[in-house]
Amino acid sequence: MFAKKLRDCQTRNKSLICVGLDSDIEKIPSQFKVNGAKGVEEFNKYIISETYEYACAYKINIAFYEMLGYKGIKTLENTVEYLKTYSDIPVIIDAKRSDISNTAKAYAKFYFDYLKVDSITINPLMGVDSIEPYLEFPNSHIFALVLTSNPGANDFIIPNKLYLKILEKLRELEPKYKDQIGIVVGATQKEYFDEIVEKSEGMIYLIPGIGSQGGKIEDLKILVEKGKTMVINVSRGIIFSEDPKREIIKLREDLRGLTS
Amino acid sequence: MFAKKLRDCQTRNKSLICVGLDSDIEKIPSQFKVNGAKGVEEFNKYIISETYEYACAYKINIAFYEMLGYKGIKTLENTVEYLKTYSDIPVIIDAKRSDISNTAKAYAKFYFDYLKVDSITINPLMGVDSIEPYLEFPNSHIFALVLTSNPGANDFIIPNKLYLKILEKLRELEPKYKDQIGIVVGATQKEYFDEIVEKSEGMIYLIPGIGSQGGKIEDLKILVEKGKTMVINVSRGIIFSEDPKREIIKLREDLRGLTS
Repeated sequence: MFAKKLRDCQTRNKSLICVGLDSDIEKIPSQFKVNGAKGVEEFNKYIISETYEYACAYKINIAFYEMLGYKGIKTLENTVEYLKTYSDIPVIIDAKRSDISNTAKAYAKFYFDYLKVDSITINPLMGVDSIEPYLEFPNSHIFALVLTSNPGANDFIIPNKLYLKILEKLRELEPKYKDQIGIVVGATQKEYFDEIVEKSEGMIYLIPGIGSQGGKIEDLKILVEKGKTMVINVSRGIIFSEDPKREIIKLREDLRGLTS
Repeated sequence: MFAKKLRDCQTRNKSLICVGLDSDIEKIPSQFKVNGAKGVEEFNKYIISETYEYACAYKINIAFYEMLGYKGIKTLENTVEYLKTYSDIPVIIDAKRSDISNTAKAYAKFYFDYLKVDSITINPLMGVDSIEPYLEFPNSHIFALVLTSNPGANDFIIPNKLYLKILEKLRELEPKYKDQIGIVVGATQKEYFDEIVEKSEGMIYLIPGIGSQGGKIEDLKILVEKGKTMVINVSRGIIFSEDPKREIIKLREDLRGLTS
């Protein structure tokens, strides 16, 4: 069960930091890059070995693997398998999938039956019947996009407070799928945190947007104060830094500063 | 260029019918199923040989390939390659992808650079900066979800007329990306066609929802009358029928009935 596994790992590693394995082949160091999709796998293993004692989860954005075709998907599969050898660390696939029920079920089969990851992100635009097929898998967990970190959130999500409408529908699903529904809320959207906190009791937050996208650790203070369970994702800021271990330790410290 | 390739094919094959290769391994005939991912490829080749003279496009929903892991993606790649030997038939990947710009670019690389398909579907929820990276690829084309065919459209897309807001943003992009933007409008949503027609000049329609989902060919009469360029997708209704060739010919005739 994702929620328990996450909380255990957060306690064990004293960390809320999730490492985003957005291992874009164009950006990984050249000694890995020369090996193509296989090099991405080697790079991931290096990052994992440097960070696993300080992370609460790994998030893998599938776009950077899909980009490499079937070999990229094999790399994704191998990375997930490798992470399972550190079996107490939850693995989230950032997929943002969306489709009608029949098709959503096919996606769910890949993530929860074939890859057997702990959680995935989904895009809720198509409504409740596009979300439920994921939840019907035993022990599955999803993070639904509620308020994304990018400027485009101002186009459809923020007008008419669509983010609150999404939250409302998720809450209607919650009693049936206890502990299976989390939400994605961008670190860059702090002016909306109050409203969201009020309507998201019991839901775990996945928070992108720290670092390259401009969000700051101190912006999350209110969420810490409200006792929210959070997974704070940092991708490029860790994996493409000169010293990933130093970087994640620093981020973990910055976060602890908020609680003291 | 997708628009020209599609119109040429529609004229040549006198057809607006797109065959949806939603080749769910659970549903393909057992003589194919026993061969796993390879069997899906063989099934696709059979369907293509039966239908290519009567179709205006093929749409491949990637979920049914992703479901089979890296071998499924290889099958997708081989199917696309095979379709290119019938090189004048446009290939659409139904991916409904959505992500921030950096990541959207990675998806775009897969579809337009690696697979080199003619068009893909995208989910516009995250806003304009999540859409533009696809359009920046030369000769690319997208179909953005505007009004989906499933009951869940009533959850977020129909309230507050979000579908019109999506259309508006797409129209703002249009001058910069001439002939690159199409829209997905479900056949089951005929009561909204008038409003959508008014705001979608020059945009090609991809229409799912005929058949298994309850949409009917005659519901599209107004779109035919307004001279819209349409790609009318039928998946299960053709590929899992007893006689796919007979089925697509019948659908093509039903549609012609609308114009006479």
